[in-house]
Amino acid sequence: MPDRSAVKGVLRTQHIETPSWAFGNSGTRFKVFAQEGIPRDAFEKIDDAATVHRFTGVAPSVAVHIPWDAVSDYAELAQHAKNAGVTIGAVNPNVFQDDDYRLGSLCNPDPAVRRKAVGHFLECIDIMDVTGSRDLSVWLADGLNYPGQDSISARQERLEESLRVVYDRLGEQQRMLLEYKFFEPAFYATDVPDWGTSYAHCLELGPKAQVLVDTGHHAPGTNIEFIVALLRRKGRLGGFHFNSRFYADDDLMVGAADPYQLFRIMSEIVFGGGLDPNSGVAFMLDQCHNIEPKIPALIRSVMNVQEATAKALLVDTDALRTAQQAGDVLDANAVLVDAFATDVRPLLAELREDMGLDPDPIAAYHRSGHAAKIRAERVGGAAAGWGA
Amino acid sequence: MPDRSAVKGVLRTQHIETPSWAFGNSGTRFKVFAQEGIPRDAFEKIDDAATVHRFTGVAPSVAVHIPWDAVSDYAELAQHAKNAGVTIGAVNPNVFQDDDYRLGSLCNPDPAVRRKAVGHFLECIDIMDVTGSRDLSVWLADGLNYPGQDSISARQERLEESLRVVYDRLGEQQRMLLEYKFFEPAFYATDVPDWGTSYAHCLELGPKAQVLVDTGHHAPGTNIEFIVALLRRKGRLGGFHFNSRFYADDDLMVGAADPYQLFRIMSEIVFGGGLDPNSGVAFMLDQCHNIEPKIPALIRSVMNVQEATAKALLVDTDALRTAQQAGDVLDANAVLVDAFATDVRPLLAELREDMGLDPDPIAAYHRSGHAAKIRAERVGGAAAGWGA
Amino acid sequence: MPDRSAVKGVLRTQHIETPSWAFGNSGTRFKVFAQEGIPRDAFEKIDDAATVHRFTGVAPSVAVHIPWDAVSDYAELAQHAKNAGVTIGAVNPNVFQDDDYRLGSLCNPDPAVRRKAVGHFLECIDIMDVTGSRDLSVWLADGLNYPGQDSISARQERLEESLRVVYDRLGEQQRMLLEYKFFEPAFYATDVPDWGTSYAHCLELGPKAQVLVDTGHHAPGTNIEFIVALLRRKGRLGGFHFNSRFYADDDLMVGAADPYQLFRIMSEIVFGGGLDPNSGVAFMLDQCHNIEPKIPALIRSVMNVQEATAKALLVDTDALRTAQQAGDVLDANAVLVDAFATDVRPLLAELREDMGLDPDPIAAYHRSGHAAKIRAERVGGAAAGWGA
Amino acid sequence: MPDRSAVKGVLRTQHIETPSWAFGNSGTRFKVFAQEGIPRDAFEKIDDAATVHRFTGVAPSVAVHIPWDAVSDYAELAQHAKNAGVTIGAVNPNVFQDDDYRLGSLCNPDPAVRRKAVGHFLECIDIMDVTGSRDLSVWLADGLNYPGQDSISARQERLEESLRVVYDRLGEQQRMLLEYKFFEPAFYATDVPDWGTSYAHCLELGPKAQVLVDTGHHAPGTNIEFIVALLRRKGRLGGFHFNSRFYADDDLMVGAADPYQLFRIMSEIVFGGGLDPNSGVAFMLDQCHNIEPKIPALIRSVMNVQEATAKALLVDTDALRTAQQAGDVLDANAVLVDAFATDVRPLLAELREDMGLDPDPIAAYHRSGHAAKIRAERVGGAAAGWGA
Repeated sequence: MPDRSAVKGVLRTQHIETPSWAFGNSGTRFKVFAQEGIPRDAFEKIDDAATVHRFTGVAPSVAVHIPWDAVSDYAELAQHAKNAGVTIGAVNPNVFQDDDYRLGSLCNPDPAVRRKAVGHFLECIDIMDVTGSRDLSVWLADGLNYPGQDSISARQERLEESLRVVYDRLGEQQRMLLEYKFFEPAFYATDVPDWGTSYAHCLELGPKAQVLVDTGHHAPGTNIEFIVALLRRKGRLGGFHFNSRFYADDDLMVGAADPYQLFRIMSEIVFGGGLDPNSGVAFMLDQCHNIEPKIPALIRSVMNVQEATAKALLVDTDALRTAQQAGDVLDANAVLVDAFATDVRPLLAELREDMGLDPDPIAAYHRSGHAAKIRAERVGGAAAGWGA
Repeated sequence: MPDRSAVKGVLRTQHIETPSWAFGNSGTRFKVFAQEGIPRDAFEKIDDAATVHRFTGVAPSVAVHIPWDAVSDYAELAQHAKNAGVTIGAVNPNVFQDDDYRLGSLCNPDPAVRRKAVGHFLECIDIMDVTGSRDLSVWLADGLNYPGQDSISARQERLEESLRVVYDRLGEQQRMLLEYKFFEPAFYATDVPDWGTSYAHCLELGPKAQVLVDTGHHAPGTNIEFIVALLRRKGRLGGFHFNSRFYADDDLMVGAADPYQLFRIMSEIVFGGGLDPNSGVAFMLDQCHNIEPKIPALIRSVMNVQEATAKALLVDTDALRTAQQAGDVLDANAVLVDAFATDVRPLLAELREDMGLDPDPIAAYHRSGHAAKIRAERVGGAAAGWGA
Repeated sequence: MPDRSAVKGVLRTQHIETPSWAFGNSGTRFKVFAQEGIPRDAFEKIDDAATVHRFTGVAPSVAVHIPWDAVSDYAELAQHAKNAGVTIGAVNPNVFQDDDYRLGSLCNPDPAVRRKAVGHFLECIDIMDVTGSRDLSVWLADGLNYPGQDSISARQERLEESLRVVYDRLGEQQRMLLEYKFFEPAFYATDVPDWGTSYAHCLELGPKAQVLVDTGHHAPGTNIEFIVALLRRKGRLGGFHFNSRFYADDDLMVGAADPYQLFRIMSEIVFGGGLDPNSGVAFMLDQCHNIEPKIPALIRSVMNVQEATAKALLVDTDALRTAQQAGDVLDANAVLVDAFATDVRPLLAELREDMGLDPDPIAAYHRSGHAAKIRAERVGGAAAGWGA
Repeated sequence: MPDRSAVKGVLRTQHIETPSWAFGNSGTRFKVFAQEGIPRDAFEKIDDAATVHRFTGVAPSVAVHIPWDAVSDYAELAQHAKNAGVTIGAVNPNVFQDDDYRLGSLCNPDPAVRRKAVGHFLECIDIMDVTGSRDLSVWLADGLNYPGQDSISARQERLEESLRVVYDRLGEQQRMLLEYKFFEPAFYATDVPDWGTSYAHCLELGPKAQVLVDTGHHAPGTNIEFIVALLRRKGRLGGFHFNSRFYADDDLMVGAADPYQLFRIMSEIVFGGGLDPNSGVAFMLDQCHNIEPKIPALIRSVMNVQEATAKALLVDTDALRTAQQAGDVLDANAVLVDAFATDVRPLLAELREDMGLDPDPIAAYHRSGHAAKIRAERVGGAAAGWGA
């Protein structure tokens, strides 16, 4: 059985990145419900990320989205983050919200639009140079709504050429994480719909290109932990965008829909050495808190990843291997299930106290009065959202 | 074999209703791409619907959405429609775009919010009285994002009570069409997720409550024509919201994703007598033309429904019944497939000429210069969209 | 917070029915892997069910399948069960394994086949009279593989007529549980594909007809607990066939694929009073242990239902209602999640000891040497399977 | 617009391979319905394949399945095929019907089982040497039913090693086609679940390893033509197993569920040059005719592929490219749709007459009296099925 203090040791160094955009307002195509106390700019979003880190202790970086988080001076933004106790993590370019991108960005039939999109990616790498970010998160909304609308093959050709230019601009310590998505906003074909397409492009590009797994971006029934195991084995798992879903890309809090699945994913990470900081696996959240308050939802999400990780670390791998090699289906399954059935909340409370944190981050956040404070302070100005 | 002129006779009286909101801008949660020549108000939307009818001859009514189509004088709007050659069809209340509806409308835990929503429904019936509309289209965005968020049963109770008030207000010739939807915008549970739930409420309410089938609102793999056959048999098929989808509620042009499915649906309509005007089955479009021009997309959609209907009318029902009763699987299937394989475009061209229309509505529309005309005219003002 | 001893009190009276056929060999269309120690007839299957009950204490009845469990004297079979410490539960007719049923049973276009199928149902009710069974479990393999193969409506008509005859034969204390299934073995349309169809037939038939929910028989993404809540509210939830699935009707051990879903289902049961013996909700397993040993798999399955039930009973319903009424999404969800996160294995170990059972049924079974015993005894004869 | 006689020229050389096993009895896990006139051995199955070719003219080869088609002398079998007017095509090993394969074949934790499975593959290559077959079709039933049952990564390791041995044995002109499957018979994880996994293994193995696309083996909603376009572009599309499905791996007649999808797939083949005999794309059927007669079902299936191909060849690629490059979504889509809407049955009737065939293969088959003949002749002996 895994040693309790060793488990705590690993959990203590866990690093879960929050996304700046999850602190702004979001919604569906039907409605964005406005909340109070929402940040008005990138600085305030970083403050919120720092708040999440202050209560959880394991969320020391925040991903930014350009131009939603565009500022005139990124060194100042990085310094602001540092002062707040966090760092700027992955940079996420946005090539889907300009009218020019109606028919795609890197895959657009118009070369001028492709150049524009590539240009934005290059600017984002410039930003990374300033913020010291390692990862360029590449998600493309490119795709087709109708059969025949464009040539699937020609779009792959354009994608390959566009990504090459971006890849070649990456610095020595920088990486490109290529995200795939089953559908949405394109409704017939997506230009990078599955891990296989992302993997094939990464192979073409080189070792600094890695696959990014967003847990909500799969066909119904897809076994995500299988993909995780495969990509780890191939050395091409760049990281995660964590969230959960019942139907499509619901972007609910990670672990909220199927905690057992999250545990299985984290178990494959543990089995494959992916918690080792040198593994290069980035653990990032990518969620929308459409109807619930943002900061506590993100605290809860970080805790959900922690709980799944703790359970994964508690798997008795010796017993598991023994049962697997004996072909004992029920016993092997039971070893996994036993770890999942364990209540790890006491262990995590203990860990937090070891780290000088409140054992109950949600209660502590509520007691802190922080929500009332930002509601009072953040009056006037435009609340952040997906459009800005 | 069905008689060609009898088929044309039925097709001549077909009635496909267009939705006012499909003429405005729409998009996904990621982006609404603006188009030119978009109507600025309900009057201009009705003009666009009239344009679709002018080129197709079978789209003589337009559904409205309140408050997106709110005007100060609905009699004037009805008269405007009449002058343009169309009528106002179904009225669609909107109880999902007010901040009060964050946790639902008719199912909201707060009775004040439920009263507000019911009030809006009653106002819509007032509008129906003025416009002479028969159908109140009830689609609710109500649902839950997280397990435990609210009581599923309590919400059903509230729904029942709220719908009762609305139902009781319906006039003699008016109906309530209760739409169901598998998911979106709610991501864990929808309060009317399937035809069974809608049907159960309709049974409770009375004969003026009918089920509305939106072809994009089902779980993957659902056999929609089965539902259509069942509801027809039970006398509870109020009508359709037609569109097509590959994944979720994609709202693509009807027939664009799976024309064979549309044909099978229309075949069940033909088999069940649903084309008879007395059947009470309303054939309405409900689509989003996010990246393609609206008016030609709607002309094409109307034509797609026509083509599917024509093929359904060409099914050799005697041969079909004979093969079915003989248990001849291949022959029975072949009878259906043969009708589908038939190219009905010549028949429809002929029908249009009989009706004094151009045999090729899309080409005629392009030749008409109408697109350039509205692009030039509709400058200034706020283009219509889902928000207004 | 729920009282620990009250929770144990409810769990003590829980009644989970095992299926005789799960003790026989099963497999996929590709292969049935034979196991050793498999029962050769209905008597030995009942012995195995009694073994599961002996170790778990909450599985006091066994469902039978006719003709797989056909015997010459059902009174003798019932007495055998009684002697072994269990009773015979639901009777499951089989109208899908005779060549006559190629095109269906109760819906077959040939009236002679329909009569034959109805006759088999009536025989099963005769058996129920002898065994004292309350429930006739009706699952039909009826459906279509190809569009047009038969008339969907005509089949509904035949189904209605056939079920009527069966229903009218039910005794005062007997019920018909009408199961639905999304697909398989029919691949285009199933004659009872969803809860709505089953519910509509039950309404036609009368109060002794109830819907049977097999947890594996839904479209991908279907919210099963919603259906459970709805049917309870309508008084039409007859019971469950429990199993779990990742893809189709995988028939894995209940709780093995998504334990959180099972917990949510059992929570709706608890909220709706469905654990009350007078509620009429039957909790039955319906599984296939294709590659794992049968008896321990069933013990584990019973335990999985127990664990989900225990967690459901631990939901703090006062706190839940308070949070729901306040519209506090995160808190309401957290109340549910907290119950799920609880490790109920100690509570259940304690319950078993209270009941005079070993606290660890799986370990006790392995220690008992029972597996070796039946492997040695059950040599010769034909191992039971789906065909016999 | 494509030239009618050029289109016929391509269709004339089309080559669609039938599967020997589709002539035998098949069914679901619930029941195999026996038919009359079923072949009793590999020779009679080849006779049936020759019958399909005789009526269609484009099915000149038949795939075999070992050991279902095991004979003592494969040269004799090849000669029998030649005499009947066809050749033996792909060889399909079977490593899923021996009790040893309960936990997998090439991925089994037991090295002895892996060796046995590899040995069977090598024997199949020996057979290919004799029959002159080019393709070894590799489909594995390997996978897991329960989380934890075995190590996903270790199984990939074993798979890689096992395939390497098989690959290295391939002759100069031989290929390995590696099929993937989403699920079934494994219900939690499949060892080659998607095209990405197959592609990754093919890359490791070398140029003679190619991906085999079975149209029924995907997650719901998967865009198959996208995969086809991608693999063609990468030079790794080995071929197809054609069939159709509404739900899972239904194995219905190709084109029966979604003829528009089949057309889109064939269009990508045409766009990507995949009809060129040098392209190396094998077009094979893999179906189960559970309730319909086998030979006419296969004739119909061949015709369905022909019709889809004819429509794909009729796409006006110049007009398509022009519309695509102009970003004209509706026009580009309309070009594709117009080809699909064309009734190609007259063209194909003409082609058949050019080839000296009856223009209506199904009617000709029925008139031929062949069904009655084989019903009369094939009495006694064991009808072929999946087990033999």
